[in-house]
Amino acid sequence: MPHIVTRIDRADPLDVAALARFGSATIHEAQGRLGALSSRLKPIDRAMSLCGPAFTVECAPRDNIMLQLAIHYAQPGDVIVVSAGAYEEAGSFGDVLGNACLAKGIAGLVTDTGVRDTTALIALGLPVFSLSVCIKGTVKETLGQINGPIVVGGEVIRPGDVIRGDADGLVTVRREDAAEVAAKSAAREDAEAGYIAAYKSGRTIIDVCNLASVLKAKGLTTDLDP
Amino acid sequence: MPHIVTRIDRADPLDVAALARFGSATIHEAQGRLGALSSRLKPIDRAMSLCGPAFTVECAPRDNIMLQLAIHYAQPGDVIVVSAGAYEEAGSFGDVLGNACLAKGIAGLVTDTGVRDTTALIALGLPVFSLSVCIKGTVKETLGQINGPIVVGGEVIRPGDVIRGDADGLVTVRREDAAEVAAKSAAREDAEAGYIAAYKSGRTIIDVCNLASVLKAKGLTTDLDP
Amino acid sequence: MPHIVTRIDRADPLDVAALARFGSATIHEAQGRLGALSSRLKPIDRAMSLCGPAFTVECAPRDNIMLQLAIHYAQPGDVIVVSAGAYEEAGSFGDVLGNACLAKGIAGLVTDTGVRDTTALIALGLPVFSLSVCIKGTVKETLGQINGPIVVGGEVIRPGDVIRGDADGLVTVRREDAAEVAAKSAAREDAEAGYIAAYKSGRTIIDVCNLASVLKAKGLTTDLDP
Amino acid sequence: MPHIVTRIDRADPLDVAALARFGSATIHEAQGRLGALSSRLKPIDRAMSLCGPAFTVECAPRDNIMLQLAIHYAQPGDVIVVSAGAYEEAGSFGDVLGNACLAKGIAGLVTDTGVRDTTALIALGLPVFSLSVCIKGTVKETLGQINGPIVVGGEVIRPGDVIRGDADGLVTVRREDAAEVAAKSAAREDAEAGYIAAYKSGRTIIDVCNLASVLKAKGLTTDLDP
Amino acid sequence: MPHIVTRIDRADPLDVAALARFGSATIHEAQGRLGALSSRLKPIDRAMSLCGPAFTVECAPRDNIMLQLAIHYAQPGDVIVVSAGAYEEAGSFGDVLGNACLAKGIAGLVTDTGVRDTTALIALGLPVFSLSVCIKGTVKETLGQINGPIVVGGEVIRPGDVIRGDADGLVTVRREDAAEVAAKSAAREDAEAGYIAAYKSGRTIIDVCNLASVLKAKGLTTDLDP
Amino acid sequence: MPHIVTRIDRADPLDVAALARFGSATIHEAQGRLGALSSRLKPIDRAMSLCGPAFTVECAPRDNIMLQLAIHYAQPGDVIVVSAGAYEEAGSFGDVLGNACLAKGIAGLVTDTGVRDTTALIALGLPVFSLSVCIKGTVKETLGQINGPIVVGGEVIRPGDVIRGDADGLVTVRREDAAEVAAKSAAREDAEAGYIAAYKSGRTIIDVCNLASVLKAKGLTTDLDP
Repeated sequence: MPHIVTRIDRADPLDVAALARFGSATIHEAQGRLGALSSRLKPIDRAMSLCGPAFTVECAPRDNIMLQLAIHYAQPGDVIVVSAGAYEEAGSFGDVLGNACLAKGIAGLVTDTGVRDTTALIALGLPVFSLSVCIKGTVKETLGQINGPIVVGGEVIRPGDVIRGDADGLVTVRREDAAEVAAKSAAREDAEAGYIAAYKSGRTIIDVCNLASVLKAKGLTTDLDP
Repeated sequence: MPHIVTRIDRADPLDVAALARFGSATIHEAQGRLGALSSRLKPIDRAMSLCGPAFTVECAPRDNIMLQLAIHYAQPGDVIVVSAGAYEEAGSFGDVLGNACLAKGIAGLVTDTGVRDTTALIALGLPVFSLSVCIKGTVKETLGQINGPIVVGGEVIRPGDVIRGDADGLVTVRREDAAEVAAKSAAREDAEAGYIAAYKSGRTIIDVCNLASVLKAKGLTTDLDP
Repeated sequence: MPHIVTRIDRADPLDVAALARFGSATIHEAQGRLGALSSRLKPIDRAMSLCGPAFTVECAPRDNIMLQLAIHYAQPGDVIVVSAGAYEEAGSFGDVLGNACLAKGIAGLVTDTGVRDTTALIALGLPVFSLSVCIKGTVKETLGQINGPIVVGGEVIRPGDVIRGDADGLVTVRREDAAEVAAKSAAREDAEAGYIAAYKSGRTIIDVCNLASVLKAKGLTTDLDP
Repeated sequence: MPHIVTRIDRADPLDVAALARFGSATIHEAQGRLGALSSRLKPIDRAMSLCGPAFTVECAPRDNIMLQLAIHYAQPGDVIVVSAGAYEEAGSFGDVLGNACLAKGIAGLVTDTGVRDTTALIALGLPVFSLSVCIKGTVKETLGQINGPIVVGGEVIRPGDVIRGDADGLVTVRREDAAEVAAKSAAREDAEAGYIAAYKSGRTIIDVCNLASVLKAKGLTTDLDP
Repeated sequence: MPHIVTRIDRADPLDVAALARFGSATIHEAQGRLGALSSRLKPIDRAMSLCGPAFTVECAPRDNIMLQLAIHYAQPGDVIVVSAGAYEEAGSFGDVLGNACLAKGIAGLVTDTGVRDTTALIALGLPVFSLSVCIKGTVKETLGQINGPIVVGGEVIRPGDVIRGDADGLVTVRREDAAEVAAKSAAREDAEAGYIAAYKSGRTIIDVCNLASVLKAKGLTTDLDP
Repeated sequence: MPHIVTRIDRADPLDVAALARFGSATIHEAQGRLGALSSRLKPIDRAMSLCGPAFTVECAPRDNIMLQLAIHYAQPGDVIVVSAGAYEEAGSFGDVLGNACLAKGIAGLVTDTGVRDTTALIALGLPVFSLSVCIKGTVKETLGQINGPIVVGGEVIRPGDVIRGDADGLVTVRREDAAEVAAKSAAREDAEAGYIAAYKSGRTIIDVCNLASVLKAKGLTTDLDP
């Protein structure tokens, strides 16, 4: 396999757009509590949100040469997803590369190492999710794979899979599951709206969630028991 | 003892209100540098603040069935305090339960695991303090104790004890000490105001804090010594 | 050597002012990727920024007596830099000492332990960089050195060296290198502006950064290769 | 309450002796998966084992004055259990205090900070469980409580409760539950011996543990299903 | 896909045997510095060593029902590899399951959570690699996948891939690469033997490793330069 | 300054030999509780012990080219001390370099990153202290400084300073203080022998350590007070 694979199957743009309407937690639940990345990966500003097909990059820790190439080859709307060794003490992305991403129409960046120039990046409006904010510079020495499957935040991400991030964190959806998960997310959101309406109307959890029989089966006791 | 104890002795509401006027650091100092929870527990938004009697819940890590029940049984003004194994990679509370809390008049939530739906929770205005923000879902399997003494952030919290949180973190005050600690907090705040006024008037620390004799006793030397 | 050295050589104020115009990441790169402190040290508010000569203090963990003395002896414009054992669970600085610093014209505080009263400190406008925010109080027992070389965030900081901090983190510049590093920082910023302009004009990274020959030498392959 | 309480109710020595026959994991399971301390607390040598009534001590982090007093007041057979802030970078106990413990007949030490002189301690044969091994010295400044309830490794330990440790870690048993937990531990050990015998005879887990109906209820599927 | 896949393609036993002759570090280097699991996963005794095809299991954190099933379905020589959320504070495997593994001829266990009964496991002679040693019990509630691809220690492991572990840690080799990696490992070991012989004969690193020209190209300077 | 400085002032060999007779904890205390490195740095086998003048090396994280050069230039009896970014997930030293060290008569290695081939290194008998054991390979790209002052484990180590390590950890002594610290260590050891003899004779801590007046001054109370 060559170092750089440029031709990948991306999730259907309509499915990506459908998933973008839901929060990361909702999507994670809707697909059966799967696909959540480590909670240590967070946006550099809590207003940031992204959703797009993953353009995956494997970097050596403290090295960003492959990330630079990924920006060259990615397509508009892609989210560049970087596996770089879960290393906090390096900043492999800043405002220069942020401008390069914007110029290309890239939808955002997810990395398991650090970024820097965060004030400029926030001003640019490019969504950036990282393990840390760190000023320490990187080298450009070691080749890696672009668009192979990678591990980021403990999850496997394949090129073209959907990656969705917001203030709560990140979740990935396999590209072939995107339509189904979007539908299930909508259903879950409707169900949650129903729960919330019930609570606001004065009903309580044991009733709304039908906990009574479950609790009885488990042998729950209270000081109200006769 | 039954799983759920509903009848607890809460700190006097007047004492709770008195403590709410002071910052968590002031209260911690005023009661003799006691009661501070681990600094890893923080509000999901730094504007959040809470003060109320603790309604304590023991959950298994990655399980929120007892938390759901606690919302059912807690009283208006209570702060639900959850011990769930100091586990970062689970989100056991989100906007659905947040709405349920608000509907019940619950004053806030403190948990040593993660929460999610933080944007919605911030919009709701419910104070939430947690170890992490994590989207990973929980199960509803394992029974635990409601209103037993629990350990959260390295401190024992008993039902009815006061829990006070702000941007700096969390402190607990035993319910029987609440009045005395509130009085001592007021005294400390007055003393600090005096120190600050003295600094603003141009006096310096060695003078204001009477450090000179202490330092002499310790054998301090400087390059200004004759 | 006495505990307290008051006479130190500070970086030239013009050089300090020159360095203050650049971000911490730029300075770190400009001096050859040196001087960055651990990324775990961050401002308590991301709008905070500082630049000044270091007034160094060695404290025992959970003890702030020497920090109090440092405030007494520091000069206007100094940044007090504290080495206190990289201990998260103590808050050795709050609004009282913050007011004392402001009254003295001190430019900011950097510490490898915790601080508290953060809402008040942010309102005061004093730049504060720390390892943690923690309410736990400190003692005033153990003497240490003022204005010896110290280790903070894994870097040696000598009294009078420049310390520069912003939302991205902290970097130190040796006082004798300050002028040269400021000049190199300006050159780097110009170069980066050129890169950004090139990206905005539609050029891409392989071209702008002259990566083609480097990549060929490394044996890079792509699925576009003939 | 005075700083030092010397008169405590200890678990019955016969119950302590009964518990000493079982491993820490067995006891934890036998009392309903309760009482296990954090897995970060371990013996300094895996051959070490202890079981005895807790003589509890509250120390400030990096301070061992109360630990020294605890050695003075503890009784033969007691295990000194120290809460010192879960701080890794201090060594508050070494061969001098180890000899003092042995001279008093103390059964062992459990601490949530560091110890040192480990080669000598291992030679002495005194069981020592700690968070870390660290050479950094402590001070003797701050008073604390002897024989109050303390939190160590996330668990509450009351004076006189049983503490049991081996290579796997530590568990505490409330003194009033000691007899019952010893009986349940014996029953559990017998049951486990039965399971092991069944496995050795060639039976497998689904059969031995009666998993078939549980799995069917959960909807388990396999590629062997018709 | 059913929960349990029993029919998997395993690496060729001859290739597994060939790889077992080399250390984990050698194999990692020989396949191009790939496949190393996190250094936090280690054997519970440094004499332990394993090599075999992976029988992969996905468990919920603090839940071992799927691990129990894996033992039922695994074949002699398999290494059971468990992904359980990288959670330190649970012990999901002990001497009962260890005996069940031995009775089945299973070659070892690798898990990213804790194990317990380590003294018994060491006596049994079953190689066990884990993230922690922890006595805290697990539940048997949540179904997961057996023999899907999993992430353990930051690496993807597919059923049938080779997993090799020794005192230094763990490495995985894709089953289709096993023969080639074994050959490259042998070559590397021969080369290293040559280096060692050269050092013993008095030659030094710059000569043995041909560093002189590399260093000259990098612009290295010394105080011995004329 | 050139990259490599070969001419350094080493501590007097007689002083090094004198310090080698004392444990690391004793030396740390004898020089005023100074010089202890982070407790996370430990020998790969607890029987290992070293004492010698430091030959300091600055490496980039995950890069060992300068370490290879250090072995070339170090003198018999030197301890090579490596600063490599406090990075756990790399193994920059193994049996090949271990043999090279032995061939040169180097006294040991201290590094704040990982090592590998630990079984071979233990067999060789070369003392090795590290942050981790990790099989992940390193590159040979980035130049750094040999024999400049470095920070390892939070302490500054200058070339020629003494580094002493044993099972408890590591301590550094400035070369100009070596004789005095050795003398103070001997005095401390004598004092400790006296304390131990007193304990064995039945005296207790309050008496042996003259704690009575100290405690009275602090206001200690007990339940034995009249």
